[in-house]
Amino acid sequence: MQYATVRSDGVTTAAVRDGDGPWQRLDASDLSEWLLRGSVAAEPTDALAAPQLLLLLPLPSPGKVICCGLNYGDHIVEMGRALPTHPTLFAKFGDTLTGPDAVLEVPPGTLVDWEAELAVVVGQELRSASEADAEDAIAGYTIANDISLRDWQNRTNEWLQGKAWDRTTPLGPVLVTPDEIDVNAGVDVICRVNGEVVQRGNTATLVFGPAALLAYISTFTTLRPGDIVLTGTPGGVGAGRTPPQFLRDGDVVETEVPGIGTLRNAIRFTSDVLTTT
Amino acid sequence: MQYATVRSDGVTTAAVRDGDGPWQRLDASDLSEWLLRGSVAAEPTDALAAPQLLLLLPLPSPGKVICCGLNYGDHIVEMGRALPTHPTLFAKFGDTLTGPDAVLEVPPGTLVDWEAELAVVVGQELRSASEADAEDAIAGYTIANDISLRDWQNRTNEWLQGKAWDRTTPLGPVLVTPDEIDVNAGVDVICRVNGEVVQRGNTATLVFGPAALLAYISTFTTLRPGDIVLTGTPGGVGAGRTPPQFLRDGDVVETEVPGIGTLRNAIRFTSDVLTTT
Repeated sequence: MQYATVRSDGVTTAAVRDGDGPWQRLDASDLSEWLLRGSVAAEPTDALAAPQLLLLLPLPSPGKVICCGLNYGDHIVEMGRALPTHPTLFAKFGDTLTGPDAVLEVPPGTLVDWEAELAVVVGQELRSASEADAEDAIAGYTIANDISLRDWQNRTNEWLQGKAWDRTTPLGPVLVTPDEIDVNAGVDVICRVNGEVVQRGNTATLVFGPAALLAYISTFTTLRPGDIVLTGTPGGVGAGRTPPQFLRDGDVVETEVPGIGTLRNAIRFTSDVLTTT
Repeated sequence: MQYATVRSDGVTTAAVRDGDGPWQRLDASDLSEWLLRGSVAAEPTDALAAPQLLLLLPLPSPGKVICCGLNYGDHIVEMGRALPTHPTLFAKFGDTLTGPDAVLEVPPGTLVDWEAELAVVVGQELRSASEADAEDAIAGYTIANDISLRDWQNRTNEWLQGKAWDRTTPLGPVLVTPDEIDVNAGVDVICRVNGEVVQRGNTATLVFGPAALLAYISTFTTLRPGDIVLTGTPGGVGAGRTPPQFLRDGDVVETEVPGIGTLRNAIRFTSDVLTTT
């Protein structure tokens, strides 16, 4: 099954579809509300008119957005580093997220980089969970691009200020249930910039898989339905290239996970996003 | 004025008092709701019976909790380090917070440290704000102790997992309005462990003062009423001692800012807080 937050005939609603079937309305205004309210197995109410349907940011109000860095084993090994014994974790905010087709507005002159990622969506409350319980609590998977302002990220040791610019992390376009894709066996995570493939990783090489990440995080904080965990990015980011390559005004970033879909986001440099320093 | 979330006669409510006067009920169930709803200047409704009154976590549902590290100039200089050019920022969650008298439960064997801090509470929405606008948007000040699990904090470069254990950051006991204390001129920030003073700093030596922090953060993300910014801790943390000193089961941590009040929190080691790894 696929779940989404859609806009159809002027109304925003949570929706569900089976395979390529028609989207059907769910009784919630968005997927955050739908997941918080209970089951992903409840009955849809009525069919939506497909032609006018827009896919929006599926989870507009997550309680927590937690991200893992340095998690693709092949990339870590190729960089000559040891595999980590613990996941590197940092937070974003609900405000950081934006829709699957959104234009990403950043201040001119900043060093904007791409990070294609698989995102895990929590379906049940978890605290001090085992990996098996965490696996059972996964509502589904979606796609994110952890767009990073490298100059801000590297101003200090803590990455937050380069990772949490409002409306710069596209998410979506849909959430697919765990029966739809086999993340542990491996799904590709692909990033293209202006049509050129810049990242192509596979989740089979994740050091900490989705269930391991959820279990680990649940040791220190409660995860609840609608919370989102970004699983890290494979090799090929712009900052790792020789010479480094960053995104320019008008560049188009596509982030794809086969079986889920594709995010397509243009970069816009604008001084409307002012900096005070 | 002082604002708080109190429990009186079985009811939890936002409340206000003038100086040492009686607490009066405000028309909101807590201070997070009160601030989000609008003004801190609205009229109180009725007086509360003081004898039964308990001061609770004043802000139970902040949208954002953002913390600054390495911000006390005297401590940085005494450690032989250069003053930072940008604030080091990381996040906590609403779940990380707990009440001014709460017992702090942590897993046995973890390296638990104290960090007394002044906390700033946002009163108006801020984005790309100037320092002057940020200053005007401060609803008030309260106290926090950024209790840190140093072993978890140092597992990776990103501090989140050592800083965001559920219900380990006490906050309160009240919010005082900016006219009550002069943070820029300097207020003391004091930590005692079992009655012994372990930290005594003064906000006059903050590298980034409250308004500067709010303005800086507002460059990348929107701050809203009820959001909380922790301003960093002065010298004297346990990890910085020779030999290092950490908190033990039953220790009592007191965190005081004269003009605001005192947090009083016992440490409890318990395997009810399980670790999966």
